[in-house]
Amino acid sequence: MKVGFVQLNIKFGDKERNVKEALKLMRNVDAGLLVLPELFNTGYTLTSKEEALKLAEEIPHGKTTKELIDYSIEKGMYIVAGLIEREEGKIFNSAVVTGPEGYIGKYRKSHLFYYEKKWFEPGDTGFQIFHLKNLKVKVGVIICFDWIFPEASRSLALKGAEIICHPANLVLPYAQKAMLTRAIENKVFIITSNRVGREKRGIFDFKFTGMSQVTSPRMKVLVRASQEREEVRTVDINVEEARNKKITEMNDLLKDRRPELYLDLTKRET
Amino acid sequence: MKVGFVQLNIKFGDKERNVKEALKLMRNVDAGLLVLPELFNTGYTLTSKEEALKLAEEIPHGKTTKELIDYSIEKGMYIVAGLIEREEGKIFNSAVVTGPEGYIGKYRKSHLFYYEKKWFEPGDTGFQIFHLKNLKVKVGVIICFDWIFPEASRSLALKGAEIICHPANLVLPYAQKAMLTRAIENKVFIITSNRVGREKRGIFDFKFTGMSQVTSPRMKVLVRASQEREEVRTVDINVEEARNKKITEMNDLLKDRRPELYLDLTKRET
Repeated sequence: MKVGFVQLNIKFGDKERNVKEALKLMRNVDAGLLVLPELFNTGYTLTSKEEALKLAEEIPHGKTTKELIDYSIEKGMYIVAGLIEREEGKIFNSAVVTGPEGYIGKYRKSHLFYYEKKWFEPGDTGFQIFHLKNLKVKVGVIICFDWIFPEASRSLALKGAEIICHPANLVLPYAQKAMLTRAIENKVFIITSNRVGREKRGIFDFKFTGMSQVTSPRMKVLVRASQEREEVRTVDINVEEARNKKITEMNDLLKDRRPELYLDLTKRET
Repeated sequence: MKVGFVQLNIKFGDKERNVKEALKLMRNVDAGLLVLPELFNTGYTLTSKEEALKLAEEIPHGKTTKELIDYSIEKGMYIVAGLIEREEGKIFNSAVVTGPEGYIGKYRKSHLFYYEKKWFEPGDTGFQIFHLKNLKVKVGVIICFDWIFPEASRSLALKGAEIICHPANLVLPYAQKAMLTRAIENKVFIITSNRVGREKRGIFDFKFTGMSQVTSPRMKVLVRASQEREEVRTVDINVEEARNKKITEMNDLLKDRRPELYLDLTKRET
């Protein structure tokens, strides 16, 4: 199975251009699953809630989701892509999952970073599994800053995720390194799709770090993009590696857990 | 506050030599807290439960713990060190914590690696906090393979650990890299004390990877030892960095958790 990412440079606010550019880059790519960056159609550096609302779309009835659905059907390909979602005046930092069967589902970012808290609602979907039928694979989604919370990827792995799709807009290089740990601790594949380029808006001047990557359950970076360029990269993976949680003949990474000794991580107070 | 590790080469079964060697290496070191490897007084590569029982000691009434207590009192230093613990015919892969005030506590390894399951009981102490009074710091202990289970370090961080002491006998280089993630995701310091050398016993031929390290809450390796040599290395740390869990003015790594969305990680079945 071929999976990969689309590393984009995004023109803030120009949804038509950004979607067109992404689909153009994907045109000649042969892959079962591609992950696009967080907020791939709008750009990241919002300056007000009004602006965010104007750029937001409904999922699955908005224009961008429809375009992704059409493209997924046309190409027979699964796509995970980040966009601003609007629902009754509330907005979320979401990712949509589409495939040859059409709309599959969405994830709303659980852990909001910095000024995102000013415009987005904290995600309420939790960590769900999406079955990609044609590929016979179970995927979960986290978005950008979710990476730093081990409970996010762990919850997905315990629910059966074999691949974690990770749309991102990273301005630091920490996540790319940490994904090695997330991958081995859960024995899953992780596809991190980051963007490149710079956004200077309002009080912010963000330079995105690129280096999108596919990470293996054996703690290897299978493919990593540049820091600067738009790129689509894919790699052949054997999902069986993520299904077998054994790391020695006597150790199974999920069965060896000692839940009775762990603090209840579902409670806020300890 | 100066903290560090003692990276040892251990002679299997020769407890007198190993303890003497460790204390000799520590003789001229000025540090508030030193971490020694897992099973530092016996070596790692056991071949039977009988052998393990013979090398085991009570905690705190065994000889090695007493020597560590004496040394801690004499030097005014806190020590965390791994040894085989015996309690009524059961044995554990344990670590003892000693200080100027004498015996402080012990931790029994929760996640056993490979053949360890043949001789050791799974640890039953859970993840506890030890208050090192003179240093005014709270530490937790994990042992070697515990590193791969995010719930272990997370439980300690949520209980208030500022430094995680990590005695180890690592034969692969993964943990050293992963500790960067453990440190930043919890905003704690981590002291990994690994051993060097080779043990060829029974069906095993283990080469230990050294590279003991102190890792900072900002995902930096502050000091790292060689792969081959016995070394004591220390570094000045500012524990305040581990107390402040903010990573932006709007993000606190522990308060930003979304427990209501996480799977209950204290349950085995999901």
